[in-house]
Amino acid sequence: MGDSFELHPDVQNTARQIADMDIRGAATIADAAAAALGAQAAECDFDSPDAFRTVMRAAARELEATRPTAVSLPNALRYVLSEMEGETVAALARSVERSVGRFRTDLDNAQDRLGEIGAGRLHDGDTVMTHCHSTDAMACIAAAVRSGTDVSAIVKETRPRNQGHITARELRELDVPVTLIVDNAAHRFLDDVDHLLVGADSIAADGSVVNKIGTAGLAVSARDRGVPVMIAAQSIKLDPKTLTGTTVEIEQRDPTEVLDTDTRDDIGTIAVENPAFDVTPPRHVDAIITEHGQFPPESIVVLMRELFGEDVTEPWIETETSV
Amino acid sequence: MGDSFELHPDVQNTARQIADMDIRGAATIADAAAAALGAQAAECDFDSPDAFRTVMRAAARELEATRPTAVSLPNALRYVLSEMEGETVAALARSVERSVGRFRTDLDNAQDRLGEIGAGRLHDGDTVMTHCHSTDAMACIAAAVRSGTDVSAIVKETRPRNQGHITARELRELDVPVTLIVDNAAHRFLDDVDHLLVGADSIAADGSVVNKIGTAGLAVSARDRGVPVMIAAQSIKLDPKTLTGTTVEIEQRDPTEVLDTDTRDDIGTIAVENPAFDVTPPRHVDAIITEHGQFPPESIVVLMRELFGEDVTEPWIETETSV
Amino acid sequence: MGDSFELHPDVQNTARQIADMDIRGAATIADAAAAALGAQAAECDFDSPDAFRTVMRAAARELEATRPTAVSLPNALRYVLSEMEGETVAALARSVERSVGRFRTDLDNAQDRLGEIGAGRLHDGDTVMTHCHSTDAMACIAAAVRSGTDVSAIVKETRPRNQGHITARELRELDVPVTLIVDNAAHRFLDDVDHLLVGADSIAADGSVVNKIGTAGLAVSARDRGVPVMIAAQSIKLDPKTLTGTTVEIEQRDPTEVLDTDTRDDIGTIAVENPAFDVTPPRHVDAIITEHGQFPPESIVVLMRELFGEDVTEPWIETETSV
Amino acid sequence: MGDSFELHPDVQNTARQIADMDIRGAATIADAAAAALGAQAAECDFDSPDAFRTVMRAAARELEATRPTAVSLPNALRYVLSEMEGETVAALARSVERSVGRFRTDLDNAQDRLGEIGAGRLHDGDTVMTHCHSTDAMACIAAAVRSGTDVSAIVKETRPRNQGHITARELRELDVPVTLIVDNAAHRFLDDVDHLLVGADSIAADGSVVNKIGTAGLAVSARDRGVPVMIAAQSIKLDPKTLTGTTVEIEQRDPTEVLDTDTRDDIGTIAVENPAFDVTPPRHVDAIITEHGQFPPESIVVLMRELFGEDVTEPWIETETSV
Amino acid sequence: MGDSFELHPDVQNTARQIADMDIRGAATIADAAAAALGAQAAECDFDSPDAFRTVMRAAARELEATRPTAVSLPNALRYVLSEMEGETVAALARSVERSVGRFRTDLDNAQDRLGEIGAGRLHDGDTVMTHCHSTDAMACIAAAVRSGTDVSAIVKETRPRNQGHITARELRELDVPVTLIVDNAAHRFLDDVDHLLVGADSIAADGSVVNKIGTAGLAVSARDRGVPVMIAAQSIKLDPKTLTGTTVEIEQRDPTEVLDTDTRDDIGTIAVENPAFDVTPPRHVDAIITEHGQFPPESIVVLMRELFGEDVTEPWIETETSV
Amino acid sequence: MGDSFELHPDVQNTARQIADMDIRGAATIADAAAAALGAQAAECDFDSPDAFRTVMRAAARELEATRPTAVSLPNALRYVLSEMEGETVAALARSVERSVGRFRTDLDNAQDRLGEIGAGRLHDGDTVMTHCHSTDAMACIAAAVRSGTDVSAIVKETRPRNQGHITARELRELDVPVTLIVDNAAHRFLDDVDHLLVGADSIAADGSVVNKIGTAGLAVSARDRGVPVMIAAQSIKLDPKTLTGTTVEIEQRDPTEVLDTDTRDDIGTIAVENPAFDVTPPRHVDAIITEHGQFPPESIVVLMRELFGEDVTEPWIETETSV
Repeated sequence: MGDSFELHPDVQNTARQIADMDIRGAATIADAAAAALGAQAAECDFDSPDAFRTVMRAAARELEATRPTAVSLPNALRYVLSEMEGETVAALARSVERSVGRFRTDLDNAQDRLGEIGAGRLHDGDTVMTHCHSTDAMACIAAAVRSGTDVSAIVKETRPRNQGHITARELRELDVPVTLIVDNAAHRFLDDVDHLLVGADSIAADGSVVNKIGTAGLAVSARDRGVPVMIAAQSIKLDPKTLTGTTVEIEQRDPTEVLDTDTRDDIGTIAVENPAFDVTPPRHVDAIITEHGQFPPESIVVLMRELFGEDVTEPWIETETSV
Repeated sequence: MGDSFELHPDVQNTARQIADMDIRGAATIADAAAAALGAQAAECDFDSPDAFRTVMRAAARELEATRPTAVSLPNALRYVLSEMEGETVAALARSVERSVGRFRTDLDNAQDRLGEIGAGRLHDGDTVMTHCHSTDAMACIAAAVRSGTDVSAIVKETRPRNQGHITARELRELDVPVTLIVDNAAHRFLDDVDHLLVGADSIAADGSVVNKIGTAGLAVSARDRGVPVMIAAQSIKLDPKTLTGTTVEIEQRDPTEVLDTDTRDDIGTIAVENPAFDVTPPRHVDAIITEHGQFPPESIVVLMRELFGEDVTEPWIETETSV
Repeated sequence: MGDSFELHPDVQNTARQIADMDIRGAATIADAAAAALGAQAAECDFDSPDAFRTVMRAAARELEATRPTAVSLPNALRYVLSEMEGETVAALARSVERSVGRFRTDLDNAQDRLGEIGAGRLHDGDTVMTHCHSTDAMACIAAAVRSGTDVSAIVKETRPRNQGHITARELRELDVPVTLIVDNAAHRFLDDVDHLLVGADSIAADGSVVNKIGTAGLAVSARDRGVPVMIAAQSIKLDPKTLTGTTVEIEQRDPTEVLDTDTRDDIGTIAVENPAFDVTPPRHVDAIITEHGQFPPESIVVLMRELFGEDVTEPWIETETSV
Repeated sequence: MGDSFELHPDVQNTARQIADMDIRGAATIADAAAAALGAQAAECDFDSPDAFRTVMRAAARELEATRPTAVSLPNALRYVLSEMEGETVAALARSVERSVGRFRTDLDNAQDRLGEIGAGRLHDGDTVMTHCHSTDAMACIAAAVRSGTDVSAIVKETRPRNQGHITARELRELDVPVTLIVDNAAHRFLDDVDHLLVGADSIAADGSVVNKIGTAGLAVSARDRGVPVMIAAQSIKLDPKTLTGTTVEIEQRDPTEVLDTDTRDDIGTIAVENPAFDVTPPRHVDAIITEHGQFPPESIVVLMRELFGEDVTEPWIETETSV
Repeated sequence: MGDSFELHPDVQNTARQIADMDIRGAATIADAAAAALGAQAAECDFDSPDAFRTVMRAAARELEATRPTAVSLPNALRYVLSEMEGETVAALARSVERSVGRFRTDLDNAQDRLGEIGAGRLHDGDTVMTHCHSTDAMACIAAAVRSGTDVSAIVKETRPRNQGHITARELRELDVPVTLIVDNAAHRFLDDVDHLLVGADSIAADGSVVNKIGTAGLAVSARDRGVPVMIAAQSIKLDPKTLTGTTVEIEQRDPTEVLDTDTRDDIGTIAVENPAFDVTPPRHVDAIITEHGQFPPESIVVLMRELFGEDVTEPWIETETSV
Repeated sequence: MGDSFELHPDVQNTARQIADMDIRGAATIADAAAAALGAQAAECDFDSPDAFRTVMRAAARELEATRPTAVSLPNALRYVLSEMEGETVAALARSVERSVGRFRTDLDNAQDRLGEIGAGRLHDGDTVMTHCHSTDAMACIAAAVRSGTDVSAIVKETRPRNQGHITARELRELDVPVTLIVDNAAHRFLDDVDHLLVGADSIAADGSVVNKIGTAGLAVSARDRGVPVMIAAQSIKLDPKTLTGTTVEIEQRDPTEVLDTDTRDDIGTIAVENPAFDVTPPRHVDAIITEHGQFPPESIVVLMRELFGEDVTEPWIETETSV
């Protein structure tokens, strides 16, 4: 068959939408990618199991190539492919269908479960400081509110993209009292804060937390002021490549986000660095909240080994055999 | 004479301009206030030394009332009035003239001298991180550049008013290579930095540094990353009231500085805290650079006692006697 | 059958004795509760497996309700009930009997095993500082003494209940040289100390140690003085609820423990806070000694997951079906 | 005259009362000792200036010998003797009278002045934690209350002598809301505290604070929790001997203070260490409040050099010449 | 058979060579010991399985006795013996042969695998500081070089045996730019360093790293300067005895290594302490690189439990039964 | 006269000997330089005061040029020249003679006085760790021994020049028990140490201590282990240039000191950095012992301002006028 086969339109569409950021957000991407693999498997008309596997791996590669730095995408693909098994094409297809279903259901439940676990750390009268906007962190506060816990929030605006404003509005919808501050004011307000609660873009096996730029310095401030730091992160944020020492590449964003109307003309003479993320070492974090329970950052590697095993080669990169 | 006398027009104009922030910046305010006192003394037509003193104190009070939280203003007034002496009105006027002259000359020289002292800490190839915009800090870099030292700068934008953009442009005029970053990126770039160099709004006797919001957290980050922190501050920034334990009032700025177009309508439901300054404790500062030399923050009290003595009651508040 | 059945008298008696604190101490409570479940199972005369299970769960609930904050009690009940299995009442009863036996035997051995493990950290000539009275901590010292290691102890009196005096007397019975100090003197004597050795009331999944009030500050002092902190805690002290984020409720004791003859009359005007426990974060602890080996506090979650699994819903709370 | 003269009865009585602790408290002792020297000088009937000096030095030695570890006593004696000057006995006597008067007046004012300075650091709504009972610390709170500042207090009982109960009652008389806690609970309550405010028994030239046992560990806890530490100490607590490196001897108190009814019989088998004081290094202290202003502990040496000069040999130890 | 049998000559020779340090280096010793057990099993002519086991255990004891403090040696023996199983002598021999083969193959691959994992943490342009000479640490740098990463090294000489000179020469062979410094200069150069990379002699279950003397202080310096610390250590360095609390004995080396030509005669009057190793607590280490992936030091206990289980009694110490 | 005069032979000889390091050690250099200035003044045959001053400044410049980085040398010259005053040559000469005499006498007494002050911090039974060889530090131990205090010492060898061996032998002559260790072992032995006692090469106004390479890392270790750090440094080590921000240049020594017989041939391929000194920030130092008393490092600036004033331009650099 060679490379002559065509991937299912859902795979092609999903890949394009992820690339164009029409599909975005760690969980949404993971869900769409799994669904696309399911579509591919369901309508597979090859008759050899080898051909089936080849096509599925090709579909995974197609999807994976769209956002090489996101961590939920390969995690979704790995989950589905690693459960693919059977002697016949029909059996293989059924196994994929099952694992796609299980993955999507788990994903659906994960944030609720995580929210309840995180809410367990919040007490009546507590004030939470947030950085950026994280649906996982919001899930913890929402679960606390649902169970009748009174919390209020100090929300950092989170330059350069001001996602704190989204956080502020969503918290208001939950009737959580909100105080909005500039990022520079965070240290000053930590004395009034009981928890620092942020999300994560990915989490490494050495317990480091990769999150929106500003998190690392904020966590240092929190330690100085005696404020515990909790990270809310579904397990699709755990990065299996880091089990083998690979460190996370930090993405740079557009310099114009940093310039204002006065300095925009100075581009070229004034350099701009605009990294999207930074890395908080585990010694500045108190707990990582996942849907599998809470962990000190130093032992998140245990959950990673449970979920991914020790061999983290990517199942879609295996040598293809021609059909 | 009672309260029937009128203050000199220069006093009235200067007071108004300071109040309206047409005259701004610690040194500029101090200079103008001293000059106004000089004008008042020069054209005094009272014949009793007591009346002269009463008028001078009234002029000082008028000026002092315009910006109760600035520290250079009362320092200028205190300097001039504390040197006022003589048996006759003429002698008193001459003494004021002399002290106004001396104060203004010293002020003129202070920033240059401070700049040279601060430049002594900068070495060829060093990278300096700045926060906000401080003419004292700029003087250190400018002096280093003048003496042939190659330095480059990482400049924080300094929300909410983005004074970092002023700093960036002024450094470019000195041909200092500049990299502009958002405040949230500061911690991440501290590993590339040899000095944190900032100014001060005022300095307290316990060694605390009051400076633009964001300084305190940045200094904690600098300690975590092993970067020394230098504060450039002329002695008119030393706050004599703090010798007697008084702590500095932190001014709040307009909440609309924090809101953006999306959240502006939420005012009332979303609270905003927008403090102008924060307080960095001496243990997070390595050196305070003044025109009288450099000091560890823990011994700046020594310079304050040299300059102000132990008795820091304000000379313009003494009981008035009628003319 | 509804609620019409009566629980076995042993269950009723044990529940009452636990409630009245006639049965006290984590291990003693756990042992008695397991034995009571065994008695209930042994004399069960129902003929339906469902009825058997219903009664067993009711017995567990009866026992569990007596001390809602102790952690060894639900751990004992969970252990016994989670191993209950069989198709017939007889098989179910046998399974309970077996698991009760195993639990009690393990419990019996656990402290000895823990003591030997903890003794491995103590060397000839070492001085140990203790806080409160902990049979697990005592087991470590006793095992060291038995194996010929010369240790001496500095014993904090541990206000308000002075359990240090019990520790002092028991150490004297082991011929360990003892120096008794007030709690306030602890920091001063840490320079003479090689280990801080304390027990725990419960241990959370985030590595936090809940122990007698005073432990958290002492551990901060120990870190400041370079003294390692070891916690001796059998695995029945591990709190499965904390795997899901729940934090431990801190019990308040009687205010009169704090007042003396002079202040007793001031109650009402002078408030008293008398919390029984405090929480030491894992970064101030060096090792937790259990009967399953020693663990850094950050990885005690691993042992908790081995022992309790991820699903920590309480087996006695399942919906009852009528008999 | 040799040693044949008799000291004034006031000197003898005062010495006895200090030795018997009928006169106690740093300021009270200093005041009484100065007064006794005044009495000695007033009724001196020798006709040679040398004899006068000899007697005055002998009186000072008599007084100084009563409490060799108190620091206010030699400070009072030093102050009076170092100002003794004149060509005639009458002139000498007048100089002593003057210096005694000045010393006692200054002492009288010092605590009020210190209180106002310390009150400057307390803000409306602040909570202060206290350790032991210190009239200097009380003066700060009293001054704050007088000026209308709302403060509340968390009071440590301060084993073994429970001076916290005195503090609690005195604060109630000032209508300050008080919560009494055991010493072991201090760390746990630091999160609710804005200032740690304690007195001092003496202060050394290296910035170390010698205070009631428990202070050093509490200050470590305060740093860990981000709570600033203020020490209220009149300048008679500054120890001139430490300018030349001498370290302070720590007094041991009666072991029976530590034992209770159960352990009292174990004396001999259970050793007791009961030091009265401990030493807090300057890096754990934020400010020392004196009647001369506030100082970072690292620069209290400056005030000591102002007050005592560099040569701190004790004026009453000079070689005597016979009368 | 009693003790009358003779061990295989390979066992005897290997034991002698290890004792004489002709065979040295953790991996080389482990490999040789496993091979010797293989030789013993291959030529066993006893006909009873019990006799076979007895002989194998005797061989293990013989080998183990040669270097009681090395950790790779008992790890090799434990691995081989714990997989010995079978009903017949032939089956037993085959099982030993298989486990010897697997152990030696794994050992062969482990350093390469570890090197690749460690190399994942090194980036283009990074500078690495090394202490002593470690083949595991070298493997990380070599793998980085192989994959085209430009790294340079600052190499501590590592008194008293100057193993840094070996490291320097081997790095030069890899074309890595090397700067050699004395140990005392390490702190000063940490500001130019991106990683501290060292090996380990053994690693304990509490996350402590036993390595060449000087490591512990260097790691403290690295934390002060913000430099992450990575430990490269194959899993044969993990010490199973420490799972049960036993702490590692620190070997003393010859005092003449410390003396020079001038002081050599002073031996006897000048004491010398020359410990070979020190212990770095986990809070000063960022990651341990093994062939099974990287771990925060606080969770290395997880890998130890996977590899060794909870029961770490030594299989060669079981009671013998006569043949 | 122009430049035609010749300097006194003593000036020329002393300059040569200092340059050749025949005269070495801070105090010896200072003493010799002062003596040379005295010789120059004594035999001055010019008749104009201006000429006298010109010659004296030229002599100072000649001496100062020999070791531009030593700090005691310019301090000696500054002291002598700043006291030069008079209307006639004879008066000028007498003033120089007096100031030379006073300087040399003070210098003579300074180390004894410093030793007594430092000894005040050492108690019976204390163990002191030393680094390098410092006569000021030795003076403290010697004074303690003279006054009957039992101290013992742990002596670091101090690579690359092993000055610790000199310290070890001198301590043995004082009958102080000595244990010699390699530098790498220092951290491990700090738990047995009561004081870290080192000298200084120079001390800066910001409280930084410049001392033999290795001091900065050792002080970090001492803080980690809770060991106080004392610096013994006569006031001739205080560097007046640092009052105005200038930082100290760190001298590099010969790379062959670092290489051994094996690596000596690799020079060129293996780079060597061999800095003589490093800089310890004040936050890692507890006390600086001078002959004027002890100071926290943060207030040594006070003594510097007393000794040098604020204007630290070098008196020998003033514009010359021709004779």
